[in-house]
Order: sequence, then C-alpha cells, then structure tokens
Amino acid sequence: MTDTSILTIAVAQYACADNAETNLATAERYIAEAGAAGARLVLLPELHNTPYFCRREDPAMFDYAEPVPGPSSRRLAAAAKNAGVVVVASLFERRAAGIYHNTAVVLDSDGSLAGRYRKMHIPDDPAYYEKYYFTPGDLGFTPIDTQVGRLGVLVCWDQWYPEAARLMALAGAELLIYPSAIGWDDADDDAEQARQLAAWQGVQRGHAIANHLPVVTSNRVGVEGGPNAEIRFWGHSFVFGPQGETLAEAGTDGALVTAELDLHRSETLRRIWPFFRDRRIDAFGELTRRFRD
Amino acid sequence: MTDTSILTIAVAQYACADNAETNLATAERYIAEAGAAGARLVLLPELHNTPYFCRREDPAMFDYAEPVPGPSSRRLAAAAKNAGVVVVASLFERRAAGIYHNTAVVLDSDGSLAGRYRKMHIPDDPAYYEKYYFTPGDLGFTPIDTQVGRLGVLVCWDQWYPEAARLMALAGAELLIYPSAIGWDDADDDAEQARQLAAWQGVQRGHAIANHLPVVTSNRVGVEGGPNAEIRFWGHSFVFGPQGETLAEAGTDGALVTAELDLHRSETLRRIWPFFRDRRIDAFGELTRRFRD
Repeated sequence: MTDTSILTIAVAQYACADNAETNLATAERYIAEAGAAGARLVLLPELHNTPYFCRREDPAMFDYAEPVPGPSSRRLAAAAKNAGVVVVASLFERRAAGIYHNTAVVLDSDGSLAGRYRKMHIPDDPAYYEKYYFTPGDLGFTPIDTQVGRLGVLVCWDQWYPEAARLMALAGAELLIYPSAIGWDDADDDAEQARQLAAWQGVQRGHAIANHLPVVTSNRVGVEGGPNAEIRFWGHSFVFGPQGETLAEAGTDGALVTAELDLHRSETLRRIWPFFRDRRIDAFGELTRRFRD
Repeated sequence: MTDTSILTIAVAQYACADNAETNLATAERYIAEAGAAGARLVLLPELHNTPYFCRREDPAMFDYAEPVPGPSSRRLAAAAKNAGVVVVASLFERRAAGIYHNTAVVLDSDGSLAGRYRKMHIPDDPAYYEKYYFTPGDLGFTPIDTQVGRLGVLVCWDQWYPEAARLMALAGAELLIYPSAIGWDDADDDAEQARQLAAWQGVQRGHAIANHLPVVTSNRVGVEGGPNAEIRFWGHSFVFGPQGETLAEAGTDGALVTAELDLHRSETLRRIWPFFRDRRIDAFGELTRRFRD
C-alpha cells in the first residue's frame, strides 16, 4: 500500500563549473538520479548554471544572465519531465536590459514552468556583492503550485528572515525551500566557522518549528575565487521536518540526499500546538517599520 | 580590568509549591544566590508564586491573583535591592475585577519597579487552559529599560512567535527573556518528548540568530496535577548567545545556571551579516493577516 501523504524529496549539492554547459549536464545527472531514487521533487543549488560571479563587481558578468523561459529553463524542464520529478532550479534571470534577478524557477514534473520566485532579500557583504547584480524581486512572497504540492520557494539570504517564511506559510505553503550559496571565509577560525554553519541551519530550523513546515535547503560545495574573495562553500544541505527534526543532511562534498516527508504531519502538529490561532495580528503592524525609534 | 560589556546573568528553575509564602522564600533564596554568584540579572520561572493552576478551569483559582505593585512585587523588589540584581519575575496580576493578566514584572537592582509586560499570546490546549484565566496583554511588545540594559521581556507561549521577538529587537531590546512553564505529557513517547524539547529550544535559538540577540529562558521543574492533567515540567532552562550558541543549560532538576554575555557582540554580528538592513518592509504588510486566502 502506498501512503499518499508521503512525499520523497531530494536535494543536490555540488561544485559549479565556469560554463553553463557543464553545469546543466551536472544538473541533468542529479535530476535523473533523484527520479531513479524515487524522489518526486529535487532541489538544486543557488545559481547552479554559473560560477558564483558575485565575488566581485564586473559588468561583464551580466553576460551570464538568461531569459526565463529560455534555453536553460527549457532544458531543465525536459529533464524534469524525463525523470518525472519537480525541479526547483535557480537561474540568473535577464528580465530586461538593466533588470536582472536571482530567480528560483520551478519546473513541474510534466515539463511545464510551474512558476518563478525572484529573490526578495538581496545580500551585500565582502565577496557576496549581490546588490550590484540583482534587482530586488517584485513578485512578493507567493508560493508556487505544483503536482507535489504548494511550494514556498525562497532563495538563500531570505532564509535569515522569519517574515519571509511566515508569509509563505500564511499563503498555504506546504514546504519551505531554499536554494543557497553560502560558505566560509578561511580568515575566520574554526569556532567561528562552526557557529556560522550552526546559525545557518539553526535559523531555518526555527522557521520549520514556528510554521510547522518541512524546510528543504541546498547549498553549493567547493572553493571558488582568488585571494581576498575566496569562498569555501560549506555544503551541509539538509531536510528538516515540521518539528525542526533533521531528516537528511549532507556533508561538505557533492551529494544527493533524500528524505521522506509526511505532509499530513503539519496539520497534526498545528492541532497540538496551535500557534497560528493565536498570532496577535492587532499588534504586528510595526513589523513594516525599519526600526521602532 | 573589568570589561564593561560583559554582563553575567542567571536563570533559576525550580518546582513551585501550592502557596506563595513558600514560593517567595524560594525566589528570595535564588535571587540572593544569583547576586552572590556575581550575576546582575536573574530570571525566575513563569508564575512562580503559585502552582500551575491552569491545568483546569476553576473560578476559585482567581484568588491567586494579586495587584502589581503589591505585596509580592514589593518583596521581590526588596530581594532585588538586597542582592543588587535585576529580577525578572512572573506574577498572576489582578488588574481589576474580571481582568487578570499573566505578567512579567521587572524589579530593578535599586528596588524600583522597572516595568511590566503582560503576556500577549495566550495558549489554550489540554492541561494549559490559559485563555480562561488570562486577559491578553494590551501593552504591546515594549522593552523595559533597566540598569543592565533594555530587556525584551516576553512570556512562554510568546516564544513560538518570531513576530514578538522581532518587534522587541526593532524596539532596541538587547536581550530576549522568556519565563516559561512547559512540560511533557507522559502519554507521549520518548521520541515525541525529545522532539518537543528540541523544538522549544530550537525556535528560540532561531530568534537569537535572526535578531542577533542573546535569549534567556527559564522553566519550571517537577510534576504537577493529577490524572488527565498531569504535567512533567521539563526544566532545561538555557542561555543562548546572539549566534544561537548555547552558553548555559540546566537539566530537569532545580538549578541556578549563570552565563556571561558580551553585549557588544550583537553589533559585531549585525555588521558581518546585516539582516536588519535588508528587511523587505514594503512586502511585509500581510503579516497582520490571519491567513492569506
């Protein structure tokens, strides 16, 4: 007997090469592998078609951008259909001359474009100069409906914002999904690196618990960049269940990990600890302020 | 040399008796012990003056309520002054006939009443019938200024709400503080009990990380109640640093734990990972909706 509430999902983490052709071939291999493993959804890393070009500001890097739909999204859609898997991809989207987005693209398992999410929170710190490249998203925090459910797709820096996770949950998202590109600066000592990785997982575990939703997060692996702008992507992609429990976790090497999610579990938990019933929405208005001074 | 940014704090967890006199004597002992240990702030458990009377609905229980300021708050204020410690207490406040609050009371180290916080999120589930007893707070999410800093004092069920933590952080809170009363139902198996405890700590670790603030949380210990309404309070009071790192944690027995907080650390972290700079306040308006349907 098949329990129809059980959804097997997969997360791929890998090092990205400097050309789209190599990276698309890698993505296709992981998509096929996910399908063969029985997964019905697979998540790829952030900006998997390119090197992490945001390590410095260079106008030539905009050449990496591509339209959506476009050649890459169509090729990923064909791979999704072939494997019978929903693919959450991440592309550098050229929307118009001068408007480029960091966009998560969801290809449904029938090969259709289910939807896109344009990264809302854009970081900018040494070696992650994303504000130069990415226009902030204007599609809001809107889940994407697919054959495996309503997906709360967000991107990387969004993962530090409880507001983003909550808005997706309030719109009926059944999963929170974060393609990511985050790594260590070797100038930090081991203890600081450990705290950063724990914080990255910890804040997302918090979103799982607060919203009673599974959280699925990918990352890149490997080292990119030269002196003063080198990033050692830390991998450690994971799947958390709706109580924040770890269901799958990768190490620092390339990997495909899978997990089984019971999508009925969220409602069970929301009956036992009914957080959504009690939100003091009458007192939340100042969440739209920068600071309450 | 003394580093003035280092603040030693203490958390007391203990079993509460059925009368205020015994419980106040216990509180006074822990306050004195905290002062002797060099702490400048001590947190007591939720509703430490009484048994956890919310296990059932009984009009007679309102006799436990008391005005603030009142005899108990004055006695705790004297203990705070004697020990030279800021005390975060938790009382069943009688505001008027028919209006009773679950109120955190902050006694400054000079013995003055620094302020109060009336629990905003009121739970109600089997054995925690708080909606019967507690009128929802109407003071909002407003930090309380003391001689050791600006305290983001919240109470128990509030700890599941990222919105509450964020609103305190946006109002300049330097610490998040949660007196709590939470425990296991022995009808749940060991794995479920472990997930609940981990979820309780995990969601609050998320608040620490998302806001780059220390989180200080107390709990009760011991078993209260009879058949069908028994609670085994799980203790495990803790102090997390502003990256979510565990600085102190108690077990399931009565204990006073201490930790040293570096209050400069929050700003250092906010410069490295500047979450507050990037909040998409233009897209957060629907956080004031029940559900986005």
